[in-house]
Amino acid sequence: MSTLQLIDKPECPFCWRIRVAAALQGREVEHLNREDPEVLALWERLSPTRTVPVLIDGDLVITESGPMLEYLAETGPALLPEDPRLRAEARSLVCYADNPLGKAAKEVVFEKRGKPEAEWDQARIEQGRQGYEAALPALEARLQGDYFVGGAPSLAECALFPRFALALGYGLTIPEAFPRLRAWYANLVARPELQATAPESLRPRIEL
Amino acid sequence: MSTLQLIDKPECPFCWRIRVAAALQGREVEHLNREDPEVLALWERLSPTRTVPVLIDGDLVITESGPMLEYLAETGPALLPEDPRLRAEARSLVCYADNPLGKAAKEVVFEKRGKPEAEWDQARIEQGRQGYEAALPALEARLQGDYFVGGAPSLAECALFPRFALALGYGLTIPEAFPRLRAWYANLVARPELQATAPESLRPRIEL
Repeated sequence: MSTLQLIDKPECPFCWRIRVAAALQGREVEHLNREDPEVLALWERLSPTRTVPVLIDGDLVITESGPMLEYLAETGPALLPEDPRLRAEARSLVCYADNPLGKAAKEVVFEKRGKPEAEWDQARIEQGRQGYEAALPALEARLQGDYFVGGAPSLAECALFPRFALALGYGLTIPEAFPRLRAWYANLVARPELQATAPESLRPRIEL
Repeated sequence: MSTLQLIDKPECPFCWRIRVAAALQGREVEHLNREDPEVLALWERLSPTRTVPVLIDGDLVITESGPMLEYLAETGPALLPEDPRLRAEARSLVCYADNPLGKAAKEVVFEKRGKPEAEWDQARIEQGRQGYEAALPALEARLQGDYFVGGAPSLAECALFPRFALALGYGLTIPEAFPRLRAWYANLVARPELQATAPESLRPRIEL
């Protein structure tokens, strides 16, 4: 496997899932933080639509996280089970991580990020929290073992773990009413290679 | 291969791409039109988020078009080349079909659909047209043969063909400045099995 390069932003959930995927594969990735001025010119050249993440593998450039996850799964170990039905489940959970889960949690993150607490719009935060918690029962119901699909971490964990870690980093919780989800998250967040995928800004606050 | 069922809406571009995928595979799909009242109860049960398309394969239910396309590609012929790099290209073009191409064209479609011409917001239509045309040079540049990726129709065609057919159905064109794109589209729209994927409402207007 070649060494990949990833232009990313630490707190972007689409970038974070690529870091998780690479970590689960034990795959080396050189991180180019989009917030570093020297990365800017490269990024502008490779991403005409000005989005992160950007994955670079030699002369191949991928600018969307969905195709990136599939590319990693096809060129390295793990990430998707063999059974097409379980693969469909894993991919559907990636969608679910973004909508409704991530879409709701994002309201909380965006309202709090970079603002003093006195200026937070508490109504927006509460609405985000309710939407986020409303997305949890379906996940709790689906989780029948240590992982969502096929007995091993998959693309589902790549997308869901960062969504929860980001939520916790911004003051949301996984309530006691969801014990399977709590156990799943606790197991993942305890793994040093997954801890290492978290932005430094959030790392002290992502434990349950 | 089992017979699949697809709950869809005729003009939804996410549904249409599934019909194209099945047509390219020569795969039988039973269509359940979401606009038929008798489909409503089934749809409400299977799609908690109330979206189309919904793909049903026995006891497997998939409610997002991305995982659906991958499932079709994994359980039937064609749709993706072997080379992971080309697969990444095809998948990236699916993303591109939605944003920026589809996002811009949608402004035109949504403004015109179900409204008498006298009520159309011409400024919104013009802005949509400009965004749509601004997305074409990158596609023209990528198109080096009869198809976008790997010498055969792929997921790229599944997503892009309906976006263009929908655009033409609502009065947009593929300008003469994009000859490769015009030839590509003319070739696809002439295929009877792809014609058949078009909603009846649009079929008379999707030729170049």
